[in-house]
Amino acid sequence: MNIITGGVTSPKGFKAAGIYAGIKKKRKDMALVYSTVPAKGAGTFTTNIVKAAPVLWDIKLTKESENIQALVINSGVANACTGKEGEKNNFLMAKAVADELQLPVEAVYTASTGVIGKQLPIDIIKEGIPKLVKELEDTKEAASMAAEAIMTTDTYSKEYAVTFNLGQKQVTIGGMAKGSGMIHPNMATLIGVITTDIAISKDLLQEALKENVKHTFNMISVDRDTSTNDTLIALANGMAGNNTITEKNEDYDIFCKALNLVTSNLAKMIAADGEGATKLLEVTVKSAKTWEEAVNLSKSIITSNLVKTAIFGNDANWGRILCAMGYCGVEFDPNKVDIFIESNGGSLKLVEDGVAADYSEEMASNILSSQEIRVIADIKQGLAHATAWGCDLSYDYVKINAEYRS
Amino acid sequence: MNIITGGVTSPKGFKAAGIYAGIKKKRKDMALVYSTVPAKGAGTFTTNIVKAAPVLWDIKLTKESENIQALVINSGVANACTGKEGEKNNFLMAKAVADELQLPVEAVYTASTGVIGKQLPIDIIKEGIPKLVKELEDTKEAASMAAEAIMTTDTYSKEYAVTFNLGQKQVTIGGMAKGSGMIHPNMATLIGVITTDIAISKDLLQEALKENVKHTFNMISVDRDTSTNDTLIALANGMAGNNTITEKNEDYDIFCKALNLVTSNLAKMIAADGEGATKLLEVTVKSAKTWEEAVNLSKSIITSNLVKTAIFGNDANWGRILCAMGYCGVEFDPNKVDIFIESNGGSLKLVEDGVAADYSEEMASNILSSQEIRVIADIKQGLAHATAWGCDLSYDYVKINAEYRS
Repeated sequence: MNIITGGVTSPKGFKAAGIYAGIKKKRKDMALVYSTVPAKGAGTFTTNIVKAAPVLWDIKLTKESENIQALVINSGVANACTGKEGEKNNFLMAKAVADELQLPVEAVYTASTGVIGKQLPIDIIKEGIPKLVKELEDTKEAASMAAEAIMTTDTYSKEYAVTFNLGQKQVTIGGMAKGSGMIHPNMATLIGVITTDIAISKDLLQEALKENVKHTFNMISVDRDTSTNDTLIALANGMAGNNTITEKNEDYDIFCKALNLVTSNLAKMIAADGEGATKLLEVTVKSAKTWEEAVNLSKSIITSNLVKTAIFGNDANWGRILCAMGYCGVEFDPNKVDIFIESNGGSLKLVEDGVAADYSEEMASNILSSQEIRVIADIKQGLAHATAWGCDLSYDYVKINAEYRS
Repeated sequence: MNIITGGVTSPKGFKAAGIYAGIKKKRKDMALVYSTVPAKGAGTFTTNIVKAAPVLWDIKLTKESENIQALVINSGVANACTGKEGEKNNFLMAKAVADELQLPVEAVYTASTGVIGKQLPIDIIKEGIPKLVKELEDTKEAASMAAEAIMTTDTYSKEYAVTFNLGQKQVTIGGMAKGSGMIHPNMATLIGVITTDIAISKDLLQEALKENVKHTFNMISVDRDTSTNDTLIALANGMAGNNTITEKNEDYDIFCKALNLVTSNLAKMIAADGEGATKLLEVTVKSAKTWEEAVNLSKSIITSNLVKTAIFGNDANWGRILCAMGYCGVEFDPNKVDIFIESNGGSLKLVEDGVAADYSEEMASNILSSQEIRVIADIKQGLAHATAWGCDLSYDYVKINAEYRS
C-alpha cells in the first residue's frame, strides 16, 4: 500500500473544483466533486435528531439512487434548522448542478457547513455553479481547491490518498475532510469525501464505510457536540478495472485496510486541527473487557474539558484522566489501572495500580509539551483495546466560539 | 418560610469552625461542623467508579451509623486515587476529630477536595484538628469561616438558611457548599453540607435528600466532569423539638420544600461561580413527554461547550441550542420547537417551530449581556418540564484549568 500526495482527484475519472462564490466574506466557499462516469455512492450521516436539509437529501439518495456522479458542497451556511425553505434551497442547489452537468438530480449529493439557522443564499449559489463546473479538473491542484473551499474554522485543508493493487490493477482511494468545531461525530464527521476508482457493489461500499467510521471518524472529538450536518460520502466509479467486489473476499479486506488508512489519517487531521487546538491527543485504552468499553473509556478521556485544559497547560494531571474514566459508565477496578504518556519527548509511567507512580513532574511536562501526545491506559480487565483522538482546550477555542458569528 | 442570613450554625445545637492548617499555601483549608447532640446523618455521593477515600468512609457510615455528630473537611488535597494509604489517612483524620471531641470514630464524617492523586499531609492535619475544635462556635461568623475553608477555585463562599414552623416549633435548615470545577454531579455535588434541628427519622432524612438532589445539585454542571469526591451530607439533630417525622405526612412535605429552597439556591450559586464563569445560565425545557426527557434535554444544553462559549460572547447562536437538544438521545420533533431567552435586559423569542423567529440580534445580544440568563425551550410534546443550571465558558476557565497545579 502506497501513500501518495493527492486527494479526491487521485483516483481515475474524478474531477474537482473549489471556488469563491460569495457566500462567505472572502474565502472559497463552494466545492464540487465529479465522476466522469456513474459511481456507486455510500454515506454515513449524523445521528442528531436535528438533521440539516442536505443530510436529509443524501440519506434519501443513499437509499434510492443506484448511481451518483457529483457532490456539491458549500461552506458558510449549514442549511440546518431552516425548515421547508431550506429543503427547497437544497434541492435547487442539486438541480442547478444536475442541469449544468446534464445529470438526473438524483445523481447529485449535497453538503453544507457553517452557521446553523440561516437560509442558503440560493441566488449566489446558482450563479456560482456554472463557474464551478467550468473549473472542474482532474489535477491535484483542483482537489486542493475543493478541500480548501469546504473549510470553516479549519486552519489547514485535509487531504489523503493511497494506492494499492488488486490483481494486476492499481486502485486508488483519495479523500478530503473538514472539521474544526461541532466535532463529536456519531456515524460520520462534519464533512468527509472519499473517492475511489475501485469496482465494488453499492452494498459492500456502504458496509465498508459504515464499519470503517466506527474506528475512525466516530473516534474523534473536538468539543463533544454532535453536529446537525455530519456527512461522510464515498464514491466508487469502477475505473480501476479490477474484478468487481461483490462479496467479502480478500480484495474486500485489502480495500477496507486502504480505506482505513485514508479515513483514520483524515480523522486525526481533524482532531489535530480542532478549534483552537495546539496539540493532537491520542488515547488508547488497553485490556478492556470489550471493544465497546474501550471505546467509552477512551472517548470519555478525550472529551473531558479538564483533561483537555491540563494537556494545554503541559500538566500531567492524571487524576483527571482516571476521573474521566470513572464516570463514563464502564465497570473496572480503579486500583488496577496503569497510565502512561508518550510523545517524541519521551515516555513515562504516571500511574501504577491506581496510585501515583514515582515519576518526575518536569519530565512529564516535557513530554506533554510536544504537538502529538499519546496517553495509554491499561485497565487489566481483558483483551480489547480502542484508540480515540482529540485535542487540547485553549484560550483560542473560547475566542473562536464566542465570536463565531460576529 | 423565611430566608435568613446564616449557614450551618443557624439551626439549634450546631457549631462550626474554619481555619488555616497549612495544607494550602495561604488560604483556610480545614472546616469542622459539630452537633452538640447526636444527629441523624444522611448522604448522597458521587457515582464515579473512582471514589475518594472520604467518600468510601462516608458511604459506610451512612449505612451503618445511627448517630453522627461531626463532619471534618479539608481543602487542597482530594484524597482520591491514593489507595490504602489514602484510606488510612482518612481514618486518622476522623479519629483525631473523634478523640478531640470524645466521640466514637463512627460519628465523624469526612470530606476532602482539591488535587487528585496526592496523599493527605496527615501530620499537618492532625496538628490542625485541636485548633479547629477549639475554634468551634455557634455564630454566623463561625459558619462563614467553615464555608470559606472548603473553597478551592470558588471565588466566593456559599451559604443559605431558612426557617419554618412545624406546629408550634420553629425549624431551621442551614447549608454551605463549594463547587467551581469538576462539577457535573451525579447523586451529589462536590461538597455540600446541610444542618437542621428538625426531628426526623434517619430513613426519611436519607430519602428526602436523595429525592432532593435529583432536582437541585444533580441539575447543575460546570464542565461535565463528575468528580471523584462529590458529597452531600445532611445532619438533623432534633433540637427544634417538633414531633419527630417518621412518615411522609404534611410536616415531611414542608421540610422537603424548605430543603429544596436551601439546596437549589446553593446549587445555583455553584453554577454561577463555575470556574471562569461570568454568567449563570438557567435552562428550562417545557412540554416534554417525561421528566427524564426534560432533564436530558436541559442538561445537554447547559453542558454544550458551543452553547457556553456563545453565551460568554453574548451571541444568540440558537442553532447550537437546538443542535445540543438533537444529540442527547431524546426523540422530539425539531420542527415544533420554540426557544426564548430572558434576563433583566428583557425577553425574546428566537425560534418558532424550529426556524428563526423574526428578532433583533442587537436586542438578543443585549439580553445575553446580563449576569443571569434564562433559556426556555418549549418542545410541545407533553406536560413535563425540568430546569438545569450551568455557566458560560470563558478564557478564565482555560486559564484556571491549564494552570491548576502549577
